[in-house]
Amino acid sequence: MQAAPPALEEDIMSESWLNKVNWTHDGLVPVIAQETGTGKVLMFAWMDREALRLTAETGQAVYWSRSRKKLWRKGEESGHVQKVHNIRLDCDEDVILLTVEQLGGIACHTGRHTCFFQKLQDNQWVTDEPVLKNPEEIYRHE
Amino acid sequence: MQAAPPALEEDIMSESWLNKVNWTHDGLVPVIAQETGTGKVLMFAWMDREALRLTAETGQAVYWSRSRKKLWRKGEESGHVQKVHNIRLDCDEDVILLTVEQLGGIACHTGRHTCFFQKLQDNQWVTDEPVLKNPEEIYRHE
Repeated sequence: MQAAPPALEEDIMSESWLNKVNWTHDGLVPVIAQETGTGKVLMFAWMDREALRLTAETGQAVYWSRSRKKLWRKGEESGHVQKVHNIRLDCDEDVILLTVEQLGGIACHTGRHTCFFQKLQDNQWVTDEPVLKNPEEIYRHE
Repeated sequence: MQAAPPALEEDIMSESWLNKVNWTHDGLVPVIAQETGTGKVLMFAWMDREALRLTAETGQAVYWSRSRKKLWRKGEESGHVQKVHNIRLDCDEDVILLTVEQLGGIACHTGRHTCFFQKLQDNQWVTDEPVLKNPEEIYRHE
């Protein structure tokens, strides 16, 4: 058996970590983004193989938008880029945990720090995070 | 229009928060469990409506096991119960974030503190969390 050409071999090697992920039938993996320092859980989204590859390669979070059915480079419109510190995988190898630095301090499309701004209190969802910036000012092109 | 009898009305009121959740087509919602104090993300799982209702009612995390297709009272075999401090909902109302106290300090079925024990390093997944207890000792009845 012939050895693969060095370049190809290296290519296969460098992407083998992506094969360890148990992708859903749709080729996706759920992703939790947690803020470094504060430890706050900022958001939850999905990635496909290309999004995860790009996230690792560029050091900036790239997700798969299930509604728009395309890659979603977080912050491409808002400037609220997530600089990735760590990428983790769980025991079943089907969930990713990112540790990120949230540029602009706003992860949520509502203009809040985190997407998890509703807390259950006495059988009601109570909002306890302020809007830091008007969404209309965040998304000028939409 | 007649008013509903008081008991029924109260029943409807007290469960209306469950209706705000955007359940998947399978009637589930993804759930992130984060440890209070340390801020560590411990695990990721799913809940159906009954699991979320029970979690709020009992103050202990109850999930829906997609593999076993039944309610999974976390810790029922291992004793590693999660005492729930807070229940949060995200902006799209389709993801739950729990803040929990992890009894026994072990959330993962591998005997580790957290399920996210694999970290991407130089294109490889490296385990950086110790096994605190042998899984065979944790699950005596399986």
